[in-house]
Amino acid sequence: MSVLMLTDIEIGLKNKFISLKARSGSHSPSVFQILNLFGRTDKFVDACFLSNPYATDLFFKYLESDLISNRSKLREKLEYYPSQNNEISSKLSKHLGVDKSRIFIGNGATEIIQAVLINFVNRVVVNIPTFSPYYEFINEPSSVVFYQMNQNEDFHLNIEEYLRFVNDSKADSIVLINPNNPDGSLINKADLRKIVERNKHLKTIIIDESFIHFSSDPGEKFDSFANESIEFSNVIIIKSISKDFGIAGVRAGYAIMSDSRVSMLTSNGYLWNSNGLAEYFFDLLSNDEFLREYEVVRNKYNILRTSFINSLRQIKGIRVYPSKANFVLIELTNGTSSLDFVIAMLNRFGIYLRVGNDKIGLNGEFIRIAIRDMTTNEFILKALGEIYDD
Amino acid sequence: MSVLMLTDIEIGLKNKFISLKARSGSHSPSVFQILNLFGRTDKFVDACFLSNPYATDLFFKYLESDLISNRSKLREKLEYYPSQNNEISSKLSKHLGVDKSRIFIGNGATEIIQAVLINFVNRVVVNIPTFSPYYEFINEPSSVVFYQMNQNEDFHLNIEEYLRFVNDSKADSIVLINPNNPDGSLINKADLRKIVERNKHLKTIIIDESFIHFSSDPGEKFDSFANESIEFSNVIIIKSISKDFGIAGVRAGYAIMSDSRVSMLTSNGYLWNSNGLAEYFFDLLSNDEFLREYEVVRNKYNILRTSFINSLRQIKGIRVYPSKANFVLIELTNGTSSLDFVIAMLNRFGIYLRVGNDKIGLNGEFIRIAIRDMTTNEFILKALGEIYDD
Repeated sequence: MSVLMLTDIEIGLKNKFISLKARSGSHSPSVFQILNLFGRTDKFVDACFLSNPYATDLFFKYLESDLISNRSKLREKLEYYPSQNNEISSKLSKHLGVDKSRIFIGNGATEIIQAVLINFVNRVVVNIPTFSPYYEFINEPSSVVFYQMNQNEDFHLNIEEYLRFVNDSKADSIVLINPNNPDGSLINKADLRKIVERNKHLKTIIIDESFIHFSSDPGEKFDSFANESIEFSNVIIIKSISKDFGIAGVRAGYAIMSDSRVSMLTSNGYLWNSNGLAEYFFDLLSNDEFLREYEVVRNKYNILRTSFINSLRQIKGIRVYPSKANFVLIELTNGTSSLDFVIAMLNRFGIYLRVGNDKIGLNGEFIRIAIRDMTTNEFILKALGEIYDD
Repeated sequence: MSVLMLTDIEIGLKNKFISLKARSGSHSPSVFQILNLFGRTDKFVDACFLSNPYATDLFFKYLESDLISNRSKLREKLEYYPSQNNEISSKLSKHLGVDKSRIFIGNGATEIIQAVLINFVNRVVVNIPTFSPYYEFINEPSSVVFYQMNQNEDFHLNIEEYLRFVNDSKADSIVLINPNNPDGSLINKADLRKIVERNKHLKTIIIDESFIHFSSDPGEKFDSFANESIEFSNVIIIKSISKDFGIAGVRAGYAIMSDSRVSMLTSNGYLWNSNGLAEYFFDLLSNDEFLREYEVVRNKYNILRTSFINSLRQIKGIRVYPSKANFVLIELTNGTSSLDFVIAMLNRFGIYLRVGNDKIGLNGEFIRIAIRDMTTNEFILKALGEIYDD
């Protein structure tokens, strides 16, 4: 194919989009802002939004029968104060197989990242490309050391090189997002354990497992480090539930860390940081029927992920990075600008993709595509093919 | 009346209640925990919970027609990320008449208190009795200086004495909850302005107006310091919406402070700290029809408050402290223990009152009664009368 050219209208939209992005900092503008800019209210596909839509359906099925069909219960959740942090962690304890004293509940994983970086990190190695709050939330006198993952190795962590880097960095902390955002590369458990064992002297090892539910092949269990983490007092597991359960607007997440760290956080704040619907969600994690149904939709989604990635590999002019997450990183290798590509996909098909040009550590024309439901994935593939066949 | 005596069963409940309270820190156990302990699932009255129940009704009327009757809108709120902090503050700007750069959105006022104390306070004067997070969230090397308000003056702030105390305290910050929790005393605007004018040299003056909507007499407007606060770069207005709008489970609050302080907070976190229903609520504050209806229920409730306090004054053996909030502080003056009184009210009538014995600065047998709807208030008054006529 030839290099993609934008129309004049699209160039105008591109300039407006750039200024909207600038106002949103290093994160994507909200879907509502994008809809507004492109004047799209129907047939809009948010392929920037990372979630399992089948899990969203499942949550709404339960919400409907538990709360919407029972308005007094719904009112109870929104009228009264939710339980405090340590009460909600008791509820999660059985599901996680971790003592409640080691569980910290957050208003989304972002709040936990902020709390952990402020309280337990001084100088931290962050692997790039990464999820930007891991360096943005670091304030003086704390500092960040970037470790550039190797594009030639598909951004897969080179364990020995990384261990040497950490050793030389004089850092007291490290962050591993597993699978990593935005490339989806997975560190297997043996390697992860090796990194942790070799860094027992560090103050803090953050392992962000926000995408771990997507890391298994269809039909298999996912391999969380949560239970093993309790052997190591410096390890903190951070878990968003926005992605796997597809309910970002509920704002819920949790972390597993040493009991003294949980106490330190909850004794100085974070008392009522869950809302009523987040508490309802945490209650669902004690509901065996919900968990059984969730496992079905998790598998269903992971099958689509595998098949979507296989189809992407058929399109010429794109390099597809292997992903064990619910998104896939692609690189445009035919000279097309990634921003132009995103604008054209938005204007011509109403598909919103995450452009990678603001991600430090990503040098090239990168785009991150969120994997959605089957119909949407097919629509995205068709649109990608059409633009590339122009 | 004679001193209240508990039955043996009530003594057992009292011991369980004490241990539940101990596990909950300095805050009330959740209503769900209390229900469980006393085996009450019906006719339970939470007169510990501070809200305007008519405002809760109003919120649910809007929620029903805007979101529950329109499931795709509801799903949108819970599935997608809500807008970021600075987008939601744009929405509030018109309602508050304050530039959006000065508005910080919080996941409930508690999160804001935590953020403000950690970032903008070193040594703070806190007037007692108070809302405990104002001293609990202070960590070394920051410190608290307590200013004891005078019980003989109904805990009303003695302005000149307070100004001298602040001056002598070497504090760099002060906190004024107005009206104050747990006594409901109000500092009028002229006095508040005097305090602020005389303390321009301080780093931070926190004015918590979480109860200000209740401070006006029926039919009158309430007198917030929000707009005047922008004249003073050191003033921070903190506002919960849990109380006046009766939706604690939604977790929403805001603060007004200098634009540089808002930037400092939002550039290091607090990105997605609102949930989808909190954003929906903030949108309602731009809805003139909602605000008009709210003004009606705010007045309706304030009329009940005045009448409830007048009725309480008829009961002998209790001292009633004047309140301009949605609760009233009473003192048992006939030798009855406040904890025994709370247990008896729970066991005999299913009414849960806030015992004051864990509040520093409250020395005596104090109970805080939340004012509820008309029927509930009458039930509470009848129960109080019966226990006192034993």
